[in-house]
Formats: sequence, C-alpha cells, structure tokens
Amino acid sequence: MSLKGNALVAQSGGPTVVINASMVGVIQAARKHAEIDTVYGAVHGMDGILNEVLIDLFREDPAILQGIRHTPSAALGTSRIKPKRPDLERALEVFKAHDIRYFFYIGGNDSQLSCHLVSELAQHSDWEMRIIGVPKTIDNDLPITDNCPGFASAARLAASAVQFVARDAEAFGDAEVIEIMGRHAGWVTGATQVGRLEERDAPHLVYLPEVKVNPEEFIADCKEAYHKYGYLVVAASEGFAFAESERTKSSAKVDEFGHARLSGVAEALAEIVEEAVGRRCRHDRLGNLHRCFSYAASAVDLEEAYAVGRNAVDRACNGETDLMVTIQRKNDEPFEFECETTSLMSVADKERVVPAEWINERQNGVTEEFIRYAKPLMQGTGESMPALLPTYPRLQQHFVEKKLGQYVRVK
Amino acid sequence: MSLKGNALVAQSGGPTVVINASMVGVIQAARKHAEIDTVYGAVHGMDGILNEVLIDLFREDPAILQGIRHTPSAALGTSRIKPKRPDLERALEVFKAHDIRYFFYIGGNDSQLSCHLVSELAQHSDWEMRIIGVPKTIDNDLPITDNCPGFASAARLAASAVQFVARDAEAFGDAEVIEIMGRHAGWVTGATQVGRLEERDAPHLVYLPEVKVNPEEFIADCKEAYHKYGYLVVAASEGFAFAESERTKSSAKVDEFGHARLSGVAEALAEIVEEAVGRRCRHDRLGNLHRCFSYAASAVDLEEAYAVGRNAVDRACNGETDLMVTIQRKNDEPFEFECETTSLMSVADKERVVPAEWINERQNGVTEEFIRYAKPLMQGTGESMPALLPTYPRLQQHFVEKKLGQYVRVK
Repeated sequence: MSLKGNALVAQSGGPTVVINASMVGVIQAARKHAEIDTVYGAVHGMDGILNEVLIDLFREDPAILQGIRHTPSAALGTSRIKPKRPDLERALEVFKAHDIRYFFYIGGNDSQLSCHLVSELAQHSDWEMRIIGVPKTIDNDLPITDNCPGFASAARLAASAVQFVARDAEAFGDAEVIEIMGRHAGWVTGATQVGRLEERDAPHLVYLPEVKVNPEEFIADCKEAYHKYGYLVVAASEGFAFAESERTKSSAKVDEFGHARLSGVAEALAEIVEEAVGRRCRHDRLGNLHRCFSYAASAVDLEEAYAVGRNAVDRACNGETDLMVTIQRKNDEPFEFECETTSLMSVADKERVVPAEWINERQNGVTEEFIRYAKPLMQGTGESMPALLPTYPRLQQHFVEKKLGQYVRVK
Repeated sequence: MSLKGNALVAQSGGPTVVINASMVGVIQAARKHAEIDTVYGAVHGMDGILNEVLIDLFREDPAILQGIRHTPSAALGTSRIKPKRPDLERALEVFKAHDIRYFFYIGGNDSQLSCHLVSELAQHSDWEMRIIGVPKTIDNDLPITDNCPGFASAARLAASAVQFVARDAEAFGDAEVIEIMGRHAGWVTGATQVGRLEERDAPHLVYLPEVKVNPEEFIADCKEAYHKYGYLVVAASEGFAFAESERTKSSAKVDEFGHARLSGVAEALAEIVEEAVGRRCRHDRLGNLHRCFSYAASAVDLEEAYAVGRNAVDRACNGETDLMVTIQRKNDEPFEFECETTSLMSVADKERVVPAEWINERQNGVTEEFIRYAKPLMQGTGESMPALLPTYPRLQQHFVEKKLGQYVRVK
C-alpha cells in the first residue's frame, strides 16, 4: 500500500481568499506521513509543472506557512493553462524526474478535468501515482460537494458590499446596481440576499445568470420596489441577460446592452433603472475583490479549505486516487461537515448551477431554501481589523534544481 | 450671550463612513447645553430644510444613536442641492417657523458655501442665529483643516483593496489597474502608497489627478515595473488624464480614452497597460465603496468626525458663528489633534489639491512627506468582523409638524 516519494501541490485558475489554507493543509498533513519525503509546490500552477519551476515547501519556515494559511490569493502563483495531450505527457515526465508520486491539484471544474487526465495517463503508465483533486472556486459550481471552498468568502464580500452600498443609496433616496461575479452560476449573487433581514433592506431585486430576465417585468419590479422602499438596490450577476422579447427587439438600448453584457452589466443596467424609477442610479462592480478581499473572509470557508487539503493527503497516503475531496454537510447551524470523495470524472468540466426551485417564482430573488443553504457558510472569522493595512507573508521559494530540458508548449 | 431655541443638523453631499459620528456628536453635545431645546434633523439635507421634512433627534432612542454613530453613510439622508437665493430665503423662513437658532451643516466645499450664504442672510435679518459648518468629505480637499473626516476611512478602503488585488495580480504574474475616487484631488489615491512597505509591494505606480501623465513615460514605467517585480499594480485616480503629446494626438486609443476618462479610467488604462507589458491586465473600480465600506473604517476618522460635531455645538453655544470647525494636528504618531476654526468664507467652494512637492519627480507616486501625513490617519478600529453581515440601526424618525405652506423650488 505504501508508496514512497515526493508530493506536488499546485494552485490553478482564479485565486480565492482561502486557497492558501488548502495548500498549507496539504503541507501540514504530508509532514505526518513518512512515505512523503517532501512536498514540492508548482509555481504558477500547470505552467510551473510544465517548465519544472518547483519549490520545496518542506523548507519553508513553519511560521511563514502559518501566516500564508490566512493570506488571500494563490501564494504559489496560479495560471489558467488547459493542458493538451503533449502537456500531460510532459507533466508525467516531470513527475518521474522529481520522484513525484503524489499530486494534489487545487482548482475548479477545468482543473479537476486536467487532474483527471493526468491521473488517467499515469494509470496507463509504469509510474504509480496517487492523484487527488482539492476543490476550489468562488463560483461554487462544482457538483456533488455541498459547497466549494472559496465560495463562502466571496459570498460574504458581496453580501457585505450590498449592505454598505445600500446605505449609500438609501441616504440619497436613489437606486444602485451592484454587479457580482458569476457568469453561469448565481450562487454568489443569490447569497447577497442573506443580508436582507427586513423587507426594506437590500437587495430588493436579485438576478442570477440562470434566469433570462423579462425586461418588462424587470422595469415593473424596479418601479414597484423603489416606490415601496424609497430607494432601490439591484444585485445582478455578471451573467445577467434579458430574455428576447418584443421590447428587447425594438429597443436599441436594451439590445445594445444584451450584446455588451459580459463587460459592463452594472453600468448598462443602471441606465435602464434610472429611466425606470426616475432617480439617479449608481453602479458598482465588485470584480476581482471577490477573490482576495480578506476582510470579508468566512470562518467556515477557511476551515473547509484547510480540511480538504489535509484530507486529500490522508486519503492519498491511504491508497486512494483519481478522486476529488468533497464537503458533506452534517449540520446547518452551527455548520458541521465531513470530507468525503467523488471520482474526478464526476466533477471534471461539469457545472452545478442554482436549481430552478431555489429561485423565486418571479425570478427576481432566491427562496428560503437557498438562504438556509448559504447562510451557515457565511460566518465571519471574528478577527480584528488590522492596525494599519493588511500585510501578508510571501513564500521564501527554495527552488528545486531542474532535471529536464526546456519545454516548448504547442499552443 | 445665551441664545435660546432649537438646533438643526443636516448632512449634505456624498456620504462617508463616519458622517453619522458627526451628527451624533452634535446631538450629544447639544444635550449638555440648556439653551438648546431640541435638535432637529433635516431629512435629505437641504431638501428636507426647504420642504420642512424635519425629525426630532432628542426623541431618538439613545441606544439607537449610539449604533448610528458607527453606521456608515448618512442616516438622516443627504442630497446635492445647491441653494439659490429663493432657497436661502425659504431656509430662513423654516428656521424662524421652527424656532431654529442653531444650524450645523455637515458637508464639503459646496456645502460650506451654502452654509456661508445662509449665515450671511441670517446676519442681515432680524433672526439671530449661530451657524457652524462641520467638515466632511472623502476627497480631503477642504483647505485649512489638516484633514477632513471621511477621508481616512476612504483611504483605508482604497489602500486595503490595493493590497488585496495586488495579491491576485501577483498570483497570475499579471497586471492590474485599480481606479480610486477623486476627480480633482488625489489624496485618496496617494494614500494607497502607504501600503507599499517593500519595493515589490503594490502599488508600483500611482497617478493623481493633479498630474497630466506623459503617455510615453507611463508606458515605459509600466514596462519597467512589470519587468522588475513580475507583476504590476497601477493605482489611478478617476481624474486620470494624459498630457497632450504627439502620441496622444496620433493614437486613436489614447485619444478616445482621454475623452471618456471620467467614466471608465480603469478599463481604458488596462487596455493600454496590457499592450505595454504583454500580459493580461485586470481592472477594478472601487466607486461608491469609498463612502460606505465600514470594514475599513479608520479609528482616527471616527474620532475626528465625532469631535468636530461636538465642537461645533460647544462653539455655537459660546457665541461663535459663521465658522467651520477644523482639525489641527498636534502629533503624528500617535495621532493627536485639536478642533480649531476658520471662517466659512475661507473654505467655501475652495479646493485643496495635493501640493506639487508631495508628488515625486517622475509624477508616478507620492513622496515620504505625503506618507508621513496620511499614514497616522489610517489606523484601524481594531473592531472584530461581524459574526454574519453588517447590520446597522436606522433612525426612528419622529417627524416634526409642518408649519409653512408647500415650497416649489425654481430650478
């Protein structure tokens, strides 16, 4: 059962507030397993693997690693490379050259696919490996797992920001559109509704990318909500889109918006809202803050991210492979979970959107079931605000000597 | 000396994270002066004054007021009305009708001008009043005062966000442009440099609206910084503008950008940076978050805002009028200050930009003097992150009976 060698951990795709907790989980768990000689880290994900840019994470100062555990964004560096067949073969070559028997890939849908492809290749080679995917994505769109590390902190950032800008809009008696990340899945956008405690609280209207919005209803709902509350906050996913209708066909503005929708939803919607309610409509776009704004970190998220990293190592050392670690919810409040697994195939390149029954009938908000799902994940850390500004450590980066020739990727 | 009657407090212009602290300061100080019967609040600033929409703030629950003191944005409501002569006369009528002898106007440059005009009108009438301006603006562009309540919290938000998105850019080895509020004065943008502790830390390039940027130097500096640090973060004020040059004249892109500059600096600059460094350049715009994002509140800012509110009342009851309260710095670290005053005339409609000698020679950053000025103001509150999401009280709003006929404003 015991497979002796080195481990490799890599971070992939968009960073999150908690992805480093998973990496530190991998390192700290690996120290307890004698069969793992050291853990290498790939600098900039798949890019670092292909180019043999590896660092020795067992040589990092433990105090720095402890700091990195709470540092937002990917401390190893990340990239968005989708490996093709020659890349996968090169990766395997690199694994062999550096005696890498364990591979832990922290990433979302695309990355789990890469992970599976590497795993398949290894299985059909003479190089025995244990390969485990570690879930990560702010979009929360990996299937099977209850939720994805990275999501809850992004949700807390978005939901907090909605509460803040709502006060600004209310002070003016104006409107506001706030644009939330998520092109296909509206988990983060829906989670902003957790902050709506009273009816007059924001967000009044919530639009997920799972819904094609009826423009007439949109305008009517904006008018009604503004009239009722004296201000209006619309939370719109960046994947917001209007349904085709007579109006969208005939209106140049809505039409133009439909086309430009992925680059400036908030700005375009604000114009429409302004016309609808007859008051100024401001707009904000939280953009990359979702992935790094640690002031809004979720305590549950940090704990989950660390746990899935550790669990991946324990399972690999126990002989498991070709799996992704999942979160299994055991209790809502206080939130309790266990780490389970699913095959990499079952999650690779698959996307879980918000189920239709968790979106309200009018399709301008989420249901109580959604809130019951999301709220327990969004608990704060209780940590104090920093005395001045956030300061975080960086890895010391003890580089590993290269053993192979240069690799030129065919794009 | 003693002038018996009611007081009126109003909030004006863009909200800030700490403007409510000033309002609560006014109310709590007024309770100690027997000559003030009650403090009215104008709902939505000048709009509330003109339309007699007033609430009795002495009837508010003290526990709610204590909560409001730490609530971001303008709890009374605000507006951006610039009163004309008939409006000023109406305001005086309202003051007389409600026995208002004390007027405290919390606002920026424009508002201090309105305050001065009201004050002048009152001085030439038979209605004795004490009128004091309470400084407020995230832009920090009021002259004479060391700094303006509202600025330090906006600066903390921007400087924090720069540190966060920098980690995201560094993880990819990419570039990022972050757009900071400030069309004419670059105080908030400059303050983001407080977070640059090491040379490789962000922001690498900082552009204030006081500077017309040479496009060739801009591109050269982006290239150099990216090459040096392996990632690049540019902090640009929303008032960013290129100087006219052969290049800007001949390049459609830069030219187009020059014209559209007030609506999408970050997006337009990101395109230029992307071309310059040959890496993806992301962009974020902090927009209205500057005015309301309480997680980044500055402890000094909260203290100052409360103090200037209290001080305005004490001075008015002491017979002073036609003044704005100012902050006089007594010590840098720990920051200590006293409240002084200046005439409303001296600040009305005037703008203090960042002095040229506080901008570096290359005009792509601020000097050590700027940092020494800004840093002591940006201390955090040490408060804990909320367990779930920020929740804040609202005023109960005990409305005061109207005494005058309807007012129709001539626009």
